[in-house]
Amino acid sequence: MKAESFPAVILAAGAGRRMKAGMPKPLVKLLGLTLLERTIMGCREAGIEKFYVVVGYEKEKVIKHVEEIRKKHGVDVEVIENKNWKKGNGTSVLAALQHLSTPFFVLMCDHIFDVEIIKNFVKDVAKEKHCVLGIDKKIERVHDIDEATKVKLRGKFIEDIGKELKNFDAVDTGIFFFHPYAKEAMKKAVEEGDASLIQGVKNLAREKKIKGIEVKGEYWIDADTQENLRVAENLLLKSLIKPQDGVISKYINRKISLLISKRLCNTPITPNAISFISFLLSIIAAFLFLMTDYIYLALAGIITQASSVIDGCDGEIARLKFQSSPFGAWLDTVLDRYADVAIAGTISYTYSSIYGNAVAWIIGVLAISGFILSSYSRKEYVIRYGKELPTNKIEYFGRRDFRLFIIFIGAILAYPLEALAVTATLHHIVIIALFFKGRNCR
Amino acid sequence: MKAESFPAVILAAGAGRRMKAGMPKPLVKLLGLTLLERTIMGCREAGIEKFYVVVGYEKEKVIKHVEEIRKKHGVDVEVIENKNWKKGNGTSVLAALQHLSTPFFVLMCDHIFDVEIIKNFVKDVAKEKHCVLGIDKKIERVHDIDEATKVKLRGKFIEDIGKELKNFDAVDTGIFFFHPYAKEAMKKAVEEGDASLIQGVKNLAREKKIKGIEVKGEYWIDADTQENLRVAENLLLKSLIKPQDGVISKYINRKISLLISKRLCNTPITPNAISFISFLLSIIAAFLFLMTDYIYLALAGIITQASSVIDGCDGEIARLKFQSSPFGAWLDTVLDRYADVAIAGTISYTYSSIYGNAVAWIIGVLAISGFILSSYSRKEYVIRYGKELPTNKIEYFGRRDFRLFIIFIGAILAYPLEALAVTATLHHIVIIALFFKGRNCR
Repeated sequence: MKAESFPAVILAAGAGRRMKAGMPKPLVKLLGLTLLERTIMGCREAGIEKFYVVVGYEKEKVIKHVEEIRKKHGVDVEVIENKNWKKGNGTSVLAALQHLSTPFFVLMCDHIFDVEIIKNFVKDVAKEKHCVLGIDKKIERVHDIDEATKVKLRGKFIEDIGKELKNFDAVDTGIFFFHPYAKEAMKKAVEEGDASLIQGVKNLAREKKIKGIEVKGEYWIDADTQENLRVAENLLLKSLIKPQDGVISKYINRKISLLISKRLCNTPITPNAISFISFLLSIIAAFLFLMTDYIYLALAGIITQASSVIDGCDGEIARLKFQSSPFGAWLDTVLDRYADVAIAGTISYTYSSIYGNAVAWIIGVLAISGFILSSYSRKEYVIRYGKELPTNKIEYFGRRDFRLFIIFIGAILAYPLEALAVTATLHHIVIIALFFKGRNCR
Repeated sequence: MKAESFPAVILAAGAGRRMKAGMPKPLVKLLGLTLLERTIMGCREAGIEKFYVVVGYEKEKVIKHVEEIRKKHGVDVEVIENKNWKKGNGTSVLAALQHLSTPFFVLMCDHIFDVEIIKNFVKDVAKEKHCVLGIDKKIERVHDIDEATKVKLRGKFIEDIGKELKNFDAVDTGIFFFHPYAKEAMKKAVEEGDASLIQGVKNLAREKKIKGIEVKGEYWIDADTQENLRVAENLLLKSLIKPQDGVISKYINRKISLLISKRLCNTPITPNAISFISFLLSIIAAFLFLMTDYIYLALAGIITQASSVIDGCDGEIARLKFQSSPFGAWLDTVLDRYADVAIAGTISYTYSSIYGNAVAWIIGVLAISGFILSSYSRKEYVIRYGKELPTNKIEYFGRRDFRLFIIFIGAILAYPLEALAVTATLHHIVIIALFFKGRNCR
């Protein structure tokens, strides 16, 4: 059986008093999704298909929200009621153990994970016969270490666990993998009066039945207070900055687009709609480039740069709200190329009356072909070699953020055709450089 | 152990009297490669890395050729001498069985296979504990059925084999997989006086030790006569016609390019050099389009179409001579795009003086962007979806063979800009159609 085919149990029964949100914690919103929604969607992106949400505190509201999630995302999600939720979160896991007969994952609804962590955890436990707790040895990245649950290891197994451990090797991240046999240990904890999940884990640890496996990914956080929620928000936003971002994108565009996305993610606007808005802005800019008055020229430049910034938002919103789709990515990429063609086409046409037909024509053709072919060459490489061409600093000059920025600056300085000539030339240099580099790849 | 890691033994010890070539059969040339070279390279494309060539008749010449193949292609190939070759080809397999301690494949040097057959055979026998003979049940595609070796099956096992079988289920294709235990059966055949491979197989069949597995692929042929060699040549050439070829390519370009490739494959010219020649022809055509005299215009059109035809030869030669490389395919594709840009650019520039700047400009921009983006959109789809977009008749209008043909016809009729406008428009229609189609794909 594949690990992804095991269900995930989301603990959402607690009162969440530390959060002070005025609503059940699973319903608290973070960048466009509720905490419960984000946890479920993250697991789904990791391949998990079946979900159980354990409810207790204000269960009517939570159950209603689970219904909403099921309808909105088409997720296979059921509710498990835990009448003993007040005693501790161990009762929620026990309720799941009594309900299910297969192994399952357990996640806290208020822990925000880099989806890579969930993906890797699912892979790592695939053939694990023991129960598993996802642990983090990078203690320095744990916010609020006093409140964190510490873990002491012996080899691969957990020896002890608790908030008060003085001597520890790692921290509990709140992602678990339980086998049905964990029921005894959990029942014992409840019966003996400490109905916390930690006490259940202690019981398992005593019998050497639970391993600690280190989580692999960029970030995770227990977002159980308003302050930690803000930290989580920043972590999520920061995670949208791609390592392959170009220079302009990294230092200018992302800073603005993240602010926009932070607001837009709370509206129903879709990533594809944002792609269209960015495209429309480019087309407006292209039309403005048909006029030679400085005021229109400058405006065209500014709108070009605005379109470039907003072009980042569709991907950001898509990743924040798990709305990525191959179709969306495909559409966005091709629309971007059309937008580039429109801008380069109108600039070279307009200035042919000033600089002469031949010069403007050559620059226009070089720009249009260079803008598309620098991207085309990279994609063709991916298809032929089955992998990405390793990135190189020189390629930054052939990226969209850079080309539109040069056009923006050129327009502001009233030298749009010169700017186009510069960026067009750079693109063809990049393409030639790609070939010299690709030639040596296997 | 992976099946590809087993070596292939090529039988090249016979006198090949039926061929009447005036040289040892392994050295006979077929479309740029010798029969021995083609067999080894086909196996290498199927993933086999280690080769043994069994030599006998005129062994000095064959050994010298094996040396040449080793140097030219960097193949790991050794020679096994068979002093008893005159007795029959069973002695060659016996020599291999005495030399090797692992299972191995056996191929006849004069059997021409669709490489897919070898690939599938290697896959199919990967975990086979029995010896295997590749058989063909499609009797109708066997040339020279009288000379073919027939096979009678019982379940998956071979019951009997021989040229004279009246009642048979399939035909021996000449690709085998032998385990070391086949030595006894082969030795027995030699000792009992019929030292043919078939007699050895008969002995194995008697003990239910050899299976018949159907080969999967387009074609194979025993090229043991001059006549069959011609049939093999036609099969190989026909196999170069791709199912996804456009209309112009299929009915016009391939017919000419195959004739050219048939000649070029006997020269040392490389596929990359042909890509460059095709590119240069396009650039010459683009320059000729700068002149408006009809004679230059018509010449430009003809050279455009010639470039389109020759653009097929690089891939044909590469596949015929096993010279395909990701770099070559990458370079060819991007050069094709530059060639298209050059032609569309000069046509629209030249006719701007006749039709006015705005009209020519729009057509030029539409053509350049459409020519690149129709290909770009398809590639982007492959990357996003991880598979090809299913082909559709309408896409033929967005293919290179079609666009260059329209330009050729337009030039001949002295309406190049109109032709450019028509094909440019068609390209953008194709791109929009691609999106409507891709939208429904998963």
